[in-house]
Amino acid sequence: MSRPVHRRPEYHKINKDLFVLTYGALVAQLCKDYEKDEDVNKYLDKMGYGIGTRLVEDFLARSCVRRCHSYSEIADIIAQVAFKMYLGITPSVTCNNSSRTEFSLILDKNPLVEFVEELPAGRSSLCYCNLLCGIIRGALEMVHLAADVTFLQDRLKGDRVTEIGITFLKKLDEKKCRRKK
Amino acid sequence: MSRPVHRRPEYHKINKDLFVLTYGALVAQLCKDYEKDEDVNKYLDKMGYGIGTRLVEDFLARSCVRRCHSYSEIADIIAQVAFKMYLGITPSVTCNNSSRTEFSLILDKNPLVEFVEELPAGRSSLCYCNLLCGIIRGALEMVHLAADVTFLQDRLKGDRVTEIGITFLKKLDEKKCRRKK
Repeated sequence: MSRPVHRRPEYHKINKDLFVLTYGALVAQLCKDYEKDEDVNKYLDKMGYGIGTRLVEDFLARSCVRRCHSYSEIADIIAQVAFKMYLGITPSVTCNNSSRTEFSLILDKNPLVEFVEELPAGRSSLCYCNLLCGIIRGALEMVHLAADVTFLQDRLKGDRVTEIGITFLKKLDEKKCRRKK
Repeated sequence: MSRPVHRRPEYHKINKDLFVLTYGALVAQLCKDYEKDEDVNKYLDKMGYGIGTRLVEDFLARSCVRRCHSYSEIADIIAQVAFKMYLGITPSVTCNNSSRTEFSLILDKNPLVEFVEELPAGRSSLCYCNLLCGIIRGALEMVHLAADVTFLQDRLKGDRVTEIGITFLKKLDEKKCRRKK
């Protein structure tokens, strides 16, 4: 993490619609490639994982976040700093268990689906935005935190809100994690 | 074009790195799907065309550009307004023929390739950013202008700059264009 800490807010911004439509083209291509929704979901997650592992260094440099001391703090950082920085939205966070390892990010609005009215025909199990889960998982793993990240609710599937569940698993051993890079 | 003219600059911005890495994932997927570079290039252009046809309405509403009276003005609008708005860069424009129908956009910097050091092995004919050509072509067609849009130079191929060539063809017949939608 030797990159100097600096902010380049304007230089780092591009138009959202271009991203949202390009993402739509990516999902459409995967739907063409894979017959089963589960395979598209897996692939989006895998792609997102790769993106997350690359984004995290820049995120840490630009966000200037300090070391977190609880999973709760980490969930807040993801919602309030990372989502804000990358997608321009701030999901609300709820904690779902007493041991404070399971959290939900509740998205009232999801910019990624702005041009999507409904899931494509015959694609009712598609997690359209699964790239986001992969990105969170990949970024967390790079800071030695293992987590399961999945969609628990999705407005595209008729749910009232979109909800991403994050379950923190045991802390990754640092050496193990480095070996995985 | 009934959408009201208004600017939502901040709401419309997202982080560039997320877009650039997602675009990289899209290109990688197409390279997996199509063996020939020409097919990947064609597909990127086709995807871009679809994106361009959808972006143009928003562009016209947000940019408040007036009716252009020459191809030269149009090329300037693409470089100075559209590229600035969508990618945060302003290519320089040159006119390449005396009848003023052929133009080049010269990109000193190309944000889409920021994470790309070189073309993938065995992919020397890949036009990595061909989505951009398709977007320009699609957007122009929606305002009844037919054009060929291709990469003439590409820094990823060792050229000094990246150059997108736009050749305006005859004006599209309005009825024909509407039927195509």
